[in-house]
Amino acid sequence: MAVQPKKIIIDTDPGIDDAMAIFLALQSPEVEVIGLTTIYGNVYTTLATRNALHLLEIAGRTDIPVAEGSHVTITNGTKLRIADFVHGTDGLGNQNFPPPKGKPTEQSAASFLIDQANLYPGKVTVVALGPLTNVALAIQQDPAFSKNIGQIVILGGAFAVNGNVNPAAEANIYGDPDAADIVFTSGADVLAVGINVTHQVVLTDADREKLAKSEGKFAQYLCKILDVYFSYHYDAYNTNGVYLHDPTALLAAVDPSLITYIEGVVRVQTRGITRGLTILYNKQKRFGEVTEWTDKPTVKVAVTVDAPAVVKLLMERLIDS
Amino acid sequence: MAVQPKKIIIDTDPGIDDAMAIFLALQSPEVEVIGLTTIYGNVYTTLATRNALHLLEIAGRTDIPVAEGSHVTITNGTKLRIADFVHGTDGLGNQNFPPPKGKPTEQSAASFLIDQANLYPGKVTVVALGPLTNVALAIQQDPAFSKNIGQIVILGGAFAVNGNVNPAAEANIYGDPDAADIVFTSGADVLAVGINVTHQVVLTDADREKLAKSEGKFAQYLCKILDVYFSYHYDAYNTNGVYLHDPTALLAAVDPSLITYIEGVVRVQTRGITRGLTILYNKQKRFGEVTEWTDKPTVKVAVTVDAPAVVKLLMERLIDS
Repeated sequence: MAVQPKKIIIDTDPGIDDAMAIFLALQSPEVEVIGLTTIYGNVYTTLATRNALHLLEIAGRTDIPVAEGSHVTITNGTKLRIADFVHGTDGLGNQNFPPPKGKPTEQSAASFLIDQANLYPGKVTVVALGPLTNVALAIQQDPAFSKNIGQIVILGGAFAVNGNVNPAAEANIYGDPDAADIVFTSGADVLAVGINVTHQVVLTDADREKLAKSEGKFAQYLCKILDVYFSYHYDAYNTNGVYLHDPTALLAAVDPSLITYIEGVVRVQTRGITRGLTILYNKQKRFGEVTEWTDKPTVKVAVTVDAPAVVKLLMERLIDS
Repeated sequence: MAVQPKKIIIDTDPGIDDAMAIFLALQSPEVEVIGLTTIYGNVYTTLATRNALHLLEIAGRTDIPVAEGSHVTITNGTKLRIADFVHGTDGLGNQNFPPPKGKPTEQSAASFLIDQANLYPGKVTVVALGPLTNVALAIQQDPAFSKNIGQIVILGGAFAVNGNVNPAAEANIYGDPDAADIVFTSGADVLAVGINVTHQVVLTDADREKLAKSEGKFAQYLCKILDVYFSYHYDAYNTNGVYLHDPTALLAAVDPSLITYIEGVVRVQTRGITRGLTILYNKQKRFGEVTEWTDKPTVKVAVTVDAPAVVKLLMERLIDS
């Protein structure tokens, strides 16, 4: 009897590494992508939706629905931080691809997430690659969502390391800290893959050359858009490689054995100079006083990753297309 | 030609491990204790002053002045958090020692710190074992203080680890986060020894038995007051040993080769659920945007400690008294 592939919804703000993650998911027989939901982050939501539709057309998978997500943070009180300086102003390496033919569903992202979780209780994994507004809205709009959803795999957080927006905060959590705190304390099965883990997973210049030499359509496409991403990493980190943030989180959902994690309560600082900071309580100390971490549900936080295996899997699946 | 001992002022809230640090300083020929200044923390300031005078009388060192410090945080806007549940309601293991005969100086702690720094420019080290209100007041009241003071060694912060007040904050920084941020960004030569380091330095039950068997007056005195401290550690950390917070910071001032440090900008979160959190920017990433860490002076943050050497030095000097 064949094992049913795991149903996943990718919540995404494409984004160069989002494109890699989406293609990887489509190339992974272990999972079935039942939808994309879009969010601001690397680009504004409108452009994220356009890019999501475009990427599915490139992949020949226009059967997969795209549900447009929130255009603002959950409190609607914050100016959005858009990382177009990382991914290009079009989010896809300044390639100015033609507009997609397809359209998003009528349904909003939050509503789509709720419906799919209800339809397949315990069977749907959300892989959230951007700020967590859509997921938090689903939690707020449906009290059963956090139980119905199978797992929420988050690319986000900087656990016990410096952030990438500033020394305190990682970009996706910083994008909507209030939403992130709602998700982390929701009681859902949450796995956070932070930059403490994804900074260990690097696609080198040599890997890029291998992709360029392959005839796979995904490899060819990605090589076109990767230049901007490599340039950014060279400027910011002085390195000739790029961090595989989104692909690592995606592959952690595809094959959980690629990472190890610890469990504990995570809270997000929502204001002040460390806005967007994630703090995991590791239970080493029994506090006499009640803290903001007391009596909150635990989540899983990735701590190690088999980086060579992640890169190998990514290379194989993107070349073989 | 004999090397002049380093002049130190201990800013202290005694406190069981403060008592250990003060005795250690008095037993260390490398340093000359030119004064104690007092602060709230383990006890209220009034009791800290009483305990400081008492400890100097026990040591037969009533020649050393005690200057009483602030009774409130620098903004005077916060309820004090007093850790009497760690040190006993009297701060010294519930031993109810008789009141001291001596009195503090007329001068305030901040004023004493400023005067001594002016008197011996570049020659005075402040070892700050409690919340940083007095030191921050000295910085605010004398624009030259941060240049005149030789070094400020801080027992405080939780760098990339959970705190000891809650998962975000260490007790001394939590006690006055606004003051701590002033000190960290003052431009003075600051060395922070946080609980990421002091949690590596443990006085075991076996060490305590060795102290009890010695005839040294400091060892004998400390064995009387240590019970409460051991009980607290057993309850909070499930361990039969105690962390040598204050003695480690003191010995880092006495012999800098006992630790290694990195340099970077430290900012303190002053509000919200991670109030009192310390974040060191490690310069791994060059941020495109201006952050709260940009263009601020760097400080030193201890990262490793020769724990066996610290414990050995402490045992030798407290037994030989």
